[in-house]
Amino acid sequence: MKIVLIGAGSVATNLGIALKGAGSEITQVYSRTEKSAKELAERLSTPYTADINEIKTEKDLYVISIKDSAIFSFIKKFNVRNSLVVHTSGTLPISIIENVAGKYGVLYPVQTFTKDRILNFKDIPICIEGNNKEVNRKLKEIANSISDKVFEINSESRKVLHIAAVFACNFTNHMYAIAENLLQNQNIPFEILHSLINETANKSILSDPANMQTGPAKRNDVNVIVDHLKILENEPGVKEIYESLSKSIQEMYREENTE
Amino acid sequence: MKIVLIGAGSVATNLGIALKGAGSEITQVYSRTEKSAKELAERLSTPYTADINEIKTEKDLYVISIKDSAIFSFIKKFNVRNSLVVHTSGTLPISIIENVAGKYGVLYPVQTFTKDRILNFKDIPICIEGNNKEVNRKLKEIANSISDKVFEINSESRKVLHIAAVFACNFTNHMYAIAENLLQNQNIPFEILHSLINETANKSILSDPANMQTGPAKRNDVNVIVDHLKILENEPGVKEIYESLSKSIQEMYREENTE
Repeated sequence: MKIVLIGAGSVATNLGIALKGAGSEITQVYSRTEKSAKELAERLSTPYTADINEIKTEKDLYVISIKDSAIFSFIKKFNVRNSLVVHTSGTLPISIIENVAGKYGVLYPVQTFTKDRILNFKDIPICIEGNNKEVNRKLKEIANSISDKVFEINSESRKVLHIAAVFACNFTNHMYAIAENLLQNQNIPFEILHSLINETANKSILSDPANMQTGPAKRNDVNVIVDHLKILENEPGVKEIYESLSKSIQEMYREENTE
Repeated sequence: MKIVLIGAGSVATNLGIALKGAGSEITQVYSRTEKSAKELAERLSTPYTADINEIKTEKDLYVISIKDSAIFSFIKKFNVRNSLVVHTSGTLPISIIENVAGKYGVLYPVQTFTKDRILNFKDIPICIEGNNKEVNRKLKEIANSISDKVFEINSESRKVLHIAAVFACNFTNHMYAIAENLLQNQNIPFEILHSLINETANKSILSDPANMQTGPAKRNDVNVIVDHLKILENEPGVKEIYESLSKSIQEMYREENTE
């Protein structure tokens, strides 16, 4: 399978390396930023370009992995009638690329990527959506070549999945970052939370997280909550988040506490 | 070392099993709730009581692991002049047990425990605080018998550490629970987020989380944020949290985005 990568960010990098590892041929890398295109192309030992008009035509698959905000201007200038084109966005519907090719779809890996950390795709879920059954079948085959976890998910559900991923990844990481800041002010190394962070993640995977909730808000331990809020008096932003998340937890488990 | 466990909840269970495993002798378990006392005593093959007046005196160490709200009424009725007494609370200061014994302190394990999941303490940080140097030395010895990570931390810092743990564990788990709810409404299994949750935790451990932030709020991708908020219109509680956490992330990384 001959593949052209459109984009050279963290998703394109990880996906490109995984697809190549599974036996596909990455025939070209395109990026608006020549430096990024060159960097990824070198990792994949393949040619690159920063000029849309030099993107090779008639390849089997074009994978568009560029920022949601940049994709619109790209697709206005791009057309490959006879190939399969996919984007990798969690948020954008399949329809945004309908004018780019006859066969089109989505290949959304549910993971957080960075360029310098190349992940094994085996356990990374890949959500697919095609514009017809044949495309669906083809996308399933491609996704299965790198991952054991392939899900058919439509654009509407994928968007909700993306919001769920924002909570499970982006907002979770922000919780870690706030914790880190609080510890820094006391000269306590963040390392002190590593074991707790791991265990919290492990538990959510062993059982379902709604059953695993612990802490003062879950116990409705008002004394501790008030005490914590007093200590956060000098950090109004953090205090506000502590308050609203505690309230949200108390509401989620209200029935248990009024038993 | 002869130890009496005061309390039979998840902390007492995990700590008791670890201390026994390290060669200490658990000579008795006390809990207000006879059933809990019996349950833990059986796991430790030791006697139990639900009567404060039957707690054996003259043992080496008393570990008070009961709910913060229950500890006050307990210590009013408890006194062991010649032994070492510790509590295991992240929030309560060392001073609350000053009238209970001449030697007293705190032994706070930074972890989330459940009774039916017995953890290895080797990598669990234990924070110690004693009322004098001799007690500090003794507590370090006890903590080191089960853990490689022992920290001397005073009551004021421990309280902030506890707040940080609330963010890194309780609030993080709530993020998972919200994600789970969102997926349930779309009939998508929560399993689809397992790999992402693991990777997010792993990254925070490999580098520091403030450098690892990703997502629409970090990128200041207002289109995606507005789109997500529209989808959350029917879940006002979740929408409010999405909004306030996105705002907090945008503020934390404001400088990067205005570069």
